[in-house]
Amino acid sequence: MGELLHFEDFAVGQVIDLGSYQVTAAEIREFANEFDPQPFHLDEAAGSASMLGGLAASGWHVCSILMRMIAVSWLNKSASMGSNGVSEVKWLKPVLAGETLSGRVTILTKRISSRRPEMGIFECLFELFGESGRTKTEMTAVIFMRVKTA
Amino acid sequence: MGELLHFEDFAVGQVIDLGSYQVTAAEIREFANEFDPQPFHLDEAAGSASMLGGLAASGWHVCSILMRMIAVSWLNKSASMGSNGVSEVKWLKPVLAGETLSGRVTILTKRISSRRPEMGIFECLFELFGESGRTKTEMTAVIFMRVKTA
Repeated sequence: MGELLHFEDFAVGQVIDLGSYQVTAAEIREFANEFDPQPFHLDEAAGSASMLGGLAASGWHVCSILMRMIAVSWLNKSASMGSNGVSEVKWLKPVLAGETLSGRVTILTKRISSRRPEMGIFECLFELFGESGRTKTEMTAVIFMRVKTA
Repeated sequence: MGELLHFEDFAVGQVIDLGSYQVTAAEIREFANEFDPQPFHLDEAAGSASMLGGLAASGWHVCSILMRMIAVSWLNKSASMGSNGVSEVKWLKPVLAGETLSGRVTILTKRISSRRPEMGIFECLFELFGESGRTKTEMTAVIFMRVKTA
């Protein structure tokens, strides 16, 4: 784990770019079939007739795509120890088939666990944007990361 | 939509059973490969060496499984209009390969949207339990549902 980044390598206020990801109609339907089989996530016409305004990804699909971006761009380069939860997810705007998302993480707070001195705790704001820069999804969540000097 | 349940058909305090679901090692790895490629979700040894204590499902996989249970047991029998977010997810205990989950929803509050009189809003507590009855995941979230008499 010598080359991995640790708790000490990240500062409050730091912003980490999460790259971009294009969402296809096929994967929207595939995820929905498996996990969220509601008509507006499966069918173009039902999506267009709903508040979502088109074939829209399940909110859980959007969170899972965001998780992939977080893992690839940040956690897999770091001594991540996972998370115990999410304090808020806001699905502000639907993610429609064909859209390209970009994302970023902002570190809001950091502290070392009082019970586990080998573990640091980040509170983070995760944001996903559409092509116009409009925020699609906002999430705040905790990330645990190993302390280098414990 | 004549046979679907609507906003008026559900009461505050009502509990809806979400059935049960067995989580396999194969699907834990498959989901993790696609969305959460961290070692403790991909590899038995890495999972056992982590705080999770075994090959553990991604928290987003657990949420997605919960979503499937919610859709099959409740929303697809109802005039669901989706959701705009989640106010909290607590991954209290890891979900390990081979475990069977059960779940329930409790309706905490209900009201009709002031901006959209055709839309009711439930605030719900969603709970997933392991075989011993221990709570694995707890989530509070909003569900939108069409009003019959709008």
